[in-house]
Amino acid sequence: MLLLFTDYGWHDPYVGQVKAAIARHAPGLPVIDLLHAVPDFNPHAGAHLLDALCHGLPAGAVVLAVVDPGVGGPREAVVVEADGRFLVGPDNGLLSVLAGRSETCRTWRIAWRPEPLSDSFHGRDLFAPIAAWIAAGVFPDDKLTPMPALQVQFDTAELPRVLYIDHFGNAWTGIRGDIGGGMVEPGSQIEVNGVSLPWRRVFVEAGKGEAFWHVNSSGLVEIAVNRGSAAEKLGLKIGDLVRLSGSPESRLH
Amino acid sequence: MLLLFTDYGWHDPYVGQVKAAIARHAPGLPVIDLLHAVPDFNPHAGAHLLDALCHGLPAGAVVLAVVDPGVGGPREAVVVEADGRFLVGPDNGLLSVLAGRSETCRTWRIAWRPEPLSDSFHGRDLFAPIAAWIAAGVFPDDKLTPMPALQVQFDTAELPRVLYIDHFGNAWTGIRGDIGGGMVEPGSQIEVNGVSLPWRRVFVEAGKGEAFWHVNSSGLVEIAVNRGSAAEKLGLKIGDLVRLSGSPESRLH
Amino acid sequence: MLLLFTDYGWHDPYVGQVKAAIARHAPGLPVIDLLHAVPDFNPHAGAHLLDALCHGLPAGAVVLAVVDPGVGGPREAVVVEADGRFLVGPDNGLLSVLAGRSETCRTWRIAWRPEPLSDSFHGRDLFAPIAAWIAAGVFPDDKLTPMPALQVQFDTAELPRVLYIDHFGNAWTGIRGDIGGGMVEPGSQIEVNGVSLPWRRVFVEAGKGEAFWHVNSSGLVEIAVNRGSAAEKLGLKIGDLVRLSGSPESRLH
Repeated sequence: MLLLFTDYGWHDPYVGQVKAAIARHAPGLPVIDLLHAVPDFNPHAGAHLLDALCHGLPAGAVVLAVVDPGVGGPREAVVVEADGRFLVGPDNGLLSVLAGRSETCRTWRIAWRPEPLSDSFHGRDLFAPIAAWIAAGVFPDDKLTPMPALQVQFDTAELPRVLYIDHFGNAWTGIRGDIGGGMVEPGSQIEVNGVSLPWRRVFVEAGKGEAFWHVNSSGLVEIAVNRGSAAEKLGLKIGDLVRLSGSPESRLH
Repeated sequence: MLLLFTDYGWHDPYVGQVKAAIARHAPGLPVIDLLHAVPDFNPHAGAHLLDALCHGLPAGAVVLAVVDPGVGGPREAVVVEADGRFLVGPDNGLLSVLAGRSETCRTWRIAWRPEPLSDSFHGRDLFAPIAAWIAAGVFPDDKLTPMPALQVQFDTAELPRVLYIDHFGNAWTGIRGDIGGGMVEPGSQIEVNGVSLPWRRVFVEAGKGEAFWHVNSSGLVEIAVNRGSAAEKLGLKIGDLVRLSGSPESRLH
Repeated sequence: MLLLFTDYGWHDPYVGQVKAAIARHAPGLPVIDLLHAVPDFNPHAGAHLLDALCHGLPAGAVVLAVVDPGVGGPREAVVVEADGRFLVGPDNGLLSVLAGRSETCRTWRIAWRPEPLSDSFHGRDLFAPIAAWIAAGVFPDDKLTPMPALQVQFDTAELPRVLYIDHFGNAWTGIRGDIGGGMVEPGSQIEVNGVSLPWRRVFVEAGKGEAFWHVNSSGLVEIAVNRGSAAEKLGLKIGDLVRLSGSPESRLH
């Protein structure tokens, strides 16, 4: 199973060009678009989204993950194996939250350089062939060099910020619903932009138009409005700070 | 052939998560995205769109259809077989127009519950496996209970409203072009937002910038502008009432 | 390899309907979405984008290319074989830049008409089956009539205008980076909307927020801003004129 996770956007030709490259190196291999709307130029939000979205993927799944504002510069290109799943992308922190939270992890630098290699589209030219080979079952040992760990590593603690806003207006945060093994306290309140929000188990338990928080289907604390847009109602945007009332500051830094 | 029809939007990770679930239960099965821009929280418009878009699908086609504002509440999850095509989704009316207009129809309640089952994403956790099994040719009898009919049934008559606006600005209505076996009278006018519009067979028969109506390629009466946006020119939005001049009111209620 | 290149948009059901038609005629054939955001009603910009995006496709690749404001009118439906790649679409100029720049080129009129054939959606009804058969390896000789050349042919010289703006705000122009065999002079400036822009090899060589031009990963001169939107900063829109300072006017007409 090969999945794509990028900030390439749906409308642009970049995703199709990546898929054409994959098809050349692994004909017939199915490719799943996981997300192409990772916040632009934002590997930090991307790293937490990637970790959440990779939960539940089976062992052997391969994710081509690219949010790469430093493309063409000195950052390394890497492969990570984390708990049996493979990630291919830049060494700019994007893969580091998933890697840091995994139980077993191996890391390789991509030493291979294709001909031609564009200056601005390593997703197509460099990462796509590597990901295609791994997904097709041919691990490209000869093109990789083991490295002890990723060079850029983000903090693996919760990120108490808005990471993503979906088209319904639901705001995903970087707070997992089961921090430290126990679910975030359902009775607690969440504070965002000066407003305090109650917990509801599901949308239909909230009044029509009521703002609330719940643990979403990807395991993250999400701010939502029943049959409405939380982003609009509360003026939310990517990066907004979120606070769990009553929870020790130290848990969310 | 497995097709998806949802209000999940293209930009969000939901479609990819559904596809990853399908791939786990039916590896290699091709999946076609029919529509992910069904008006949000609007099973009524969705029901008429679904009927129009399923015309022409071959027997055996399976459609995972989800517009599900009541997810997590008491609404049932169902499978419908209508004229040889299969639909999997919520029992909230979404499947009922297609079911009610079909010649032969069978209905099952999905009795099975997967572990884990999220509160808010039955499309991924419940409907995707069922749809994948049916499309792969393994009808999951043991997970379904026959039921006499859908619990929520919308009127199967024409819906004289704007159902959908495409990115060109063309407005699809819920009026079929061949009501009662005969094409809507080509000479007649259509009234929307106080403006009366003539019929044109094709775009190139209208003047540049002229607003008109025609029967679109999915068999529905559509309001359009040649090389322009009807939605912009006429201020159209989802739900706007449409009237066929000279046609008996009783046919469009 | 079958690829789609259209102005159908991602959100609308048109792409899914084309794919369902392809699946009926060539079950299991993988389909790649190259671009569905070709500027609406603009075969001219589309023709230059198509040429750029088809570079690098392997021989045997088939592209269903549809930007077709004249659908339902007298324009012909055609198949082009250019340097071993196949294009299926309308004879309205869209395929002519790629055809005119190729070394070897053959052209056929599609004489076949399916039953039923909608007035407004030849992409689904006419082009999809033809493209599916060619991609599946069954060239439909009996449905095609050789013709000496396309009826509508655009100038194959550079198009010094903004062709496309991606979601990052980068503006693609119709100027190739290797005109006449030699790269556009890296030291030269580009002028757009009264502003003169320097060349940078890659994004990270520009200052944060600096506007510049570079040769993008599809071989076209692109106007960009490092970690920002060139379209917003410079007020760019499709069709804006671009000028290479110091280059003879005659090369870009």
